[in-house]
Amino acid sequence: MATASSTMAGGITAAQGFRAAGISAGIKASKGLDLALLVADAPASAGAVFTTNLAQAAPVLVSREHLQKTGGQARAIVVNSGCANACTGDAGMHDAREMASETARLVGCPAEQVLVASTGVIGVSLPMNKIRLGLPEALKALGPGEDRGANAARAIMTTDPFPKEAAVRISIGRGLADVAIGGMAKGSGMIEPMMATMLGFLTTDAVVPAPLLDRALRAAVDVTFNAITVDGECSTNDCVMLLASGASGSTITESTYPAFVDGLTAVCRELAIGIVRGGEGATKLVAVRVTGARSATDAKRCAKAIANSPLVKTAVHGGDPNWGRLIAVAGRAGVGFELGRAAVTIGPVVLFKDGRPHDENAPLAADYLKGKELDITVHLGVGSETATVWTCDLSADYVRINADYRT
Amino acid sequence: MATASSTMAGGITAAQGFRAAGISAGIKASKGLDLALLVADAPASAGAVFTTNLAQAAPVLVSREHLQKTGGQARAIVVNSGCANACTGDAGMHDAREMASETARLVGCPAEQVLVASTGVIGVSLPMNKIRLGLPEALKALGPGEDRGANAARAIMTTDPFPKEAAVRISIGRGLADVAIGGMAKGSGMIEPMMATMLGFLTTDAVVPAPLLDRALRAAVDVTFNAITVDGECSTNDCVMLLASGASGSTITESTYPAFVDGLTAVCRELAIGIVRGGEGATKLVAVRVTGARSATDAKRCAKAIANSPLVKTAVHGGDPNWGRLIAVAGRAGVGFELGRAAVTIGPVVLFKDGRPHDENAPLAADYLKGKELDITVHLGVGSETATVWTCDLSADYVRINADYRT
Repeated sequence: MATASSTMAGGITAAQGFRAAGISAGIKASKGLDLALLVADAPASAGAVFTTNLAQAAPVLVSREHLQKTGGQARAIVVNSGCANACTGDAGMHDAREMASETARLVGCPAEQVLVASTGVIGVSLPMNKIRLGLPEALKALGPGEDRGANAARAIMTTDPFPKEAAVRISIGRGLADVAIGGMAKGSGMIEPMMATMLGFLTTDAVVPAPLLDRALRAAVDVTFNAITVDGECSTNDCVMLLASGASGSTITESTYPAFVDGLTAVCRELAIGIVRGGEGATKLVAVRVTGARSATDAKRCAKAIANSPLVKTAVHGGDPNWGRLIAVAGRAGVGFELGRAAVTIGPVVLFKDGRPHDENAPLAADYLKGKELDITVHLGVGSETATVWTCDLSADYVRINADYRT
Repeated sequence: MATASSTMAGGITAAQGFRAAGISAGIKASKGLDLALLVADAPASAGAVFTTNLAQAAPVLVSREHLQKTGGQARAIVVNSGCANACTGDAGMHDAREMASETARLVGCPAEQVLVASTGVIGVSLPMNKIRLGLPEALKALGPGEDRGANAARAIMTTDPFPKEAAVRISIGRGLADVAIGGMAKGSGMIEPMMATMLGFLTTDAVVPAPLLDRALRAAVDVTFNAITVDGECSTNDCVMLLASGASGSTITESTYPAFVDGLTAVCRELAIGIVRGGEGATKLVAVRVTGARSATDAKRCAKAIANSPLVKTAVHGGDPNWGRLIAVAGRAGVGFELGRAAVTIGPVVLFKDGRPHDENAPLAADYLKGKELDITVHLGVGSETATVWTCDLSADYVRINADYRT
């Protein structure tokens, strides 16, 4: 089956059947945009994946509960930045519920068809007055245009240096209308607990039955959002949500599912890589590829260990072709590894192979490391499975940003 | 049974029956001390624990082999700094064996009674000429004095800002002579693969049967060297070795074992904490204590996750009483945790308890964090097990040291 996907402009309003808005409700001290609203014209199929952190924020608990009640339907998503509503106890749960019910009242749907998300400082209560006043304003500002999607993408930012939006159009088969998939995301570390978290919101105008939607979302997230790391942390508020309006009239079935997943993965990958590119203190984007692993799980585990290694990340920052640090991490990653068959390649340059250094290539590798987008490949020498994880370098700015955060 | 231990001056020569030396063999470009030799007057009981890294350096493989052959006996330990002899293939194994056999020839014992260790740059071959010329010089310099132990402690340093030595004298029971336990260690990160690793060498003049020696060493290492972290890395060359000369005439039995382990643990703890204090870029020493865990394994796992969290370490560096980062790590550490019963205490100051913030205490905690030696306690609220892990803060200097390492 021939399928094709092409990138398109826009973000969460690229798919038909959605309107969005981003306004300033005064939650952020900066008075920047801080309240985003996404409304489907009619109830949409909905799926979500949430943080595995056991300290889950109130909006995570409420959204999960709502999806269970509806069996995977939603009409709206409401998101605030500037306050994570995490570790806020019963009062925080009450606030998250009210944020949903107030949105539902304005949109005209049951409360459980509204999903909520918050991002910002942990342990601080939502300023409900500002949210109550902001919601009607956000409703008035709703629109289907690219500009509204862009406002929403700005309204969910915290320490992000730039907004993250992406969209693709995919042909899913003869006689079926093209399907659009769009999204937005925020996050500048896997977690920056006093002011952040990773959030992603996706829309499509395909008709997608809830089980397929869920499967597609998990498949796409696994190789994109779950394959990035800035600092190895995982937040209390992380979530990625996907709504399918069905407005294109094209239905995703088992036979068109692969094309849909490919398109969804492309959008997720662009958003996920955007987060890494905008990681705290980041100056370089690094794709860490592990090959020759015994299993896909081993490959990803090792790639994550390398991507989180402070010694690897500082070596990349300093442009040092330090293959010994990569071998040392592979050896301690808890995965199958055979030194005598292992290899390290930095960009196109082989530095270690079959148990022997090739330091004569170090100058070439050092030159390659001056670039801003880098590929590092470590071969484990025990199998044929592979995985890729994206990360950034570790700079003194990361320390500065996080040491001085609240002071 | 009344036992008592008291600290004493010195390091590996504090126990009777050992002579040590540290000389410059010209391996380090700096011409500093780089070859250490420790010789027991007669074959000693010997035990060792080695890195779990699968990329094991040649000296690790050779020492392990020698201990297996002798069933836990050794006459000498020879250590060089400036070159790790790791990832050096068959030639590296040959060099490590020759370093042992040459030492054995000079000391007058079988080759398998010599243990070897190396630390420094990975992937570079040992300069065997310098080692061959240095060994007789080291033999001539051997002596039982504190100064010789101090030279040895300096000769094993790489990026360490200061040498690490410790010793205790313990009374193990009525009618038995006091026993001394001493040691030295090096390391400025759990790993700095191009130039370091963690090494520890311990001596005692107790008579200790090999099985008890092994048990005691593992027990002591588990709560000391295995409970520290600078950057979460684990090297290709890590090892801790213990020799028992028996020169005191006092035998360790099951009934005197607890006193012996306590003393050994005290020496290991002082050396291990010394490594953290001298961690790369470190400005503060932090004891991370986890309480209320379901198991001791959970407690240590969570304490390690906190101690390795870049966001916690940067918050400590900046003196920010950021309890949200501690809760977020506890929630993602993969251990039992209940937010509603959890607590965070910084020094004596409660910042979070029973699911509720106590931000009114933040100024007190910020004041406490100005200190150089800090205690942080996280209560998981699901059990009664505890663990302590020592770490340091993460500073911009850590990045500078490791980004600029080979340039």
